[in-house]
Amino acid sequence: MSWTLTEEHLEDLARGAAVLGTGGGGDPYVGRLLARQAIREHGPVTVLDPGELAGDALVIPTAQMGAPTVVHEKLPSGEEPALALRTLERHLGRRAEATMPIECGGINSTIPLAVAARLGLPLVDADGMGRAFPELQMETFGVYGVSGSPMAIGGERGETTVIDTGTDNRRMEWLARGITIRLGGVAHIAEYPMSGADVQRTAVPRTLSLALTVGRAIREAREAGADPVAALATALGDTRYSHLRVLFRGKVSDVERRTEAGFARGRAEAVSFDGEHKLEILFQNENLVAMVDGEVRCLVPDLVCVLEAETAEPITTETLRYGQRVTVVGISTPSLMRTPEALATFGPAAFGLPHRFVPVEVAG
Amino acid sequence: MSWTLTEEHLEDLARGAAVLGTGGGGDPYVGRLLARQAIREHGPVTVLDPGELAGDALVIPTAQMGAPTVVHEKLPSGEEPALALRTLERHLGRRAEATMPIECGGINSTIPLAVAARLGLPLVDADGMGRAFPELQMETFGVYGVSGSPMAIGGERGETTVIDTGTDNRRMEWLARGITIRLGGVAHIAEYPMSGADVQRTAVPRTLSLALTVGRAIREAREAGADPVAALATALGDTRYSHLRVLFRGKVSDVERRTEAGFARGRAEAVSFDGEHKLEILFQNENLVAMVDGEVRCLVPDLVCVLEAETAEPITTETLRYGQRVTVVGISTPSLMRTPEALATFGPAAFGLPHRFVPVEVAG
Repeated sequence: MSWTLTEEHLEDLARGAAVLGTGGGGDPYVGRLLARQAIREHGPVTVLDPGELAGDALVIPTAQMGAPTVVHEKLPSGEEPALALRTLERHLGRRAEATMPIECGGINSTIPLAVAARLGLPLVDADGMGRAFPELQMETFGVYGVSGSPMAIGGERGETTVIDTGTDNRRMEWLARGITIRLGGVAHIAEYPMSGADVQRTAVPRTLSLALTVGRAIREAREAGADPVAALATALGDTRYSHLRVLFRGKVSDVERRTEAGFARGRAEAVSFDGEHKLEILFQNENLVAMVDGEVRCLVPDLVCVLEAETAEPITTETLRYGQRVTVVGISTPSLMRTPEALATFGPAAFGLPHRFVPVEVAG
Repeated sequence: MSWTLTEEHLEDLARGAAVLGTGGGGDPYVGRLLARQAIREHGPVTVLDPGELAGDALVIPTAQMGAPTVVHEKLPSGEEPALALRTLERHLGRRAEATMPIECGGINSTIPLAVAARLGLPLVDADGMGRAFPELQMETFGVYGVSGSPMAIGGERGETTVIDTGTDNRRMEWLARGITIRLGGVAHIAEYPMSGADVQRTAVPRTLSLALTVGRAIREAREAGADPVAALATALGDTRYSHLRVLFRGKVSDVERRTEAGFARGRAEAVSFDGEHKLEILFQNENLVAMVDGEVRCLVPDLVCVLEAETAEPITTETLRYGQRVTVVGISTPSLMRTPEALATFGPAAFGLPHRFVPVEVAG
């Protein structure tokens, strides 16, 4: 069931991951370049299905953390996340047998890929968010009992930091964010070191291959002159993300965005093409909620995805601009992400939103 | 040459250390309580002369870092610096054979004493500043080639952080300050792990016993109805801090203080008792420069000490208040702290002051 990920996969993978990234998780163009360079230098990467992991194998997920507004202006070299993984290995006194993404996103699906290529490790086809979230405690790993600590942070000058907050993943996020801000707003991390059995129990499975499927479906529809949004809906139909609803079609009419406490926070508005309806989206790195004419239509942890109207290319929160013509879709998330424990960690209340979670397939 | 430090020494030690702390290094009352508790629970501490250390012994200095304005409201439990030392030991894979202060000060001369009592380690009679300074790169250890990294930070909830910035001690300070801010403004650290040979080569020697001598001289003068400032000058006469000048006598007329970027920064003014002269002091945790009628009379790294006029009790920057009657003295520092390398690290320019360093014994 393992397969080989090559340079040819990267464009579809990064695009699909950016759809699942729901506005965050990094710019797919940057992510693609980063992975391409690593694969050209070090060769293709073996992708493992979670079921193929030995129960006692050590898996160390890797990622970039920071405000997308900063990431966008500060390109990673690709060495820092490998440094973070090696630092955590030294701290644990044990070598990793694989790496894995912590979230889906244009950069965060490809960072661990670059790490895998550089270090000759396999990459696990799973992640800890099933989308992108802005904070490190918002991972299914932690929801189902894996500690984020110890975690390691690598900086661009070769600095390393190891943080251990025991079982308190929120405290880990708080300290790691402090270091990230000091490193200029972006850092690279290795966290939630866990066993193969824990991956199988707590990760959202097969999200890398899902990103590839999604990205490919959009591209093939474009090439065939078909509707890429319809193709996206079809591609998702048989997966754990089976419901897609078109929430809105229109033009971006306003974007407010600020980099604050290490996050990109803000809101966007769009007006329908007939001028009759209004969309409002709130975001913290990622899109959190979409309201149409004041009514909630989709909210965390379900996916609010802003797509370019003609091509269905995903638009990240830091590239949202006045005047963009967009289709906004809501996508349902796997049941693993909608349990009471999961909603307590990354449901609406975790972001200070006043709304109760309602699945996108029944909302509005 | 080793000696035993008991509860009876603590009052003199903390007072003398606060004189050498030049406004910073923590409140002597808090420091004394902390050390007293540790000695009552765990017994007295063996103090080693630096010359007694084996060349290859591992010494790990311990300290508190943070803004004195916050420290004053957030009392340490005494466990965190021991946690920091143990964390650094685990990281290094080696046990410490002694601990040592990094600076002189009411708290930072007693924190390592509490660590020594708790962990049953000897305490080295030396430190890395020969006074107190606000930043971690400002240590003679670093000036003469010892790396601050790796360093460990312990928080009050048992969180630990290990930072490694290689030979860049300024970067280490920057990241550690970020963690300290996130921990609420105060943290406990273990840093500059070094050999006995490095202690002998880079530390300011015998500053603990100096603090004890200074504190005792002030107390005995008070008890004898003699002038405690004159007694202080006499006590210093035979030491590496041999010049004491009375810079000013008067009443505090203004204090501006803000907690900013993890430091207490500000300025204080005093007016002479005859109303004819004005003193101005600038501080960043510690007093940096004293100007009388606009003329520089003493500046870093020499010591600017604000003493209560009647008793010569040292007044820290966070306890400076309008109306206090004070005697302000300047004290010369050892030659180790006045070399070009030392001045580059903690001379006036390192604090953004426009003045060239002039030894207090020849200034003004």
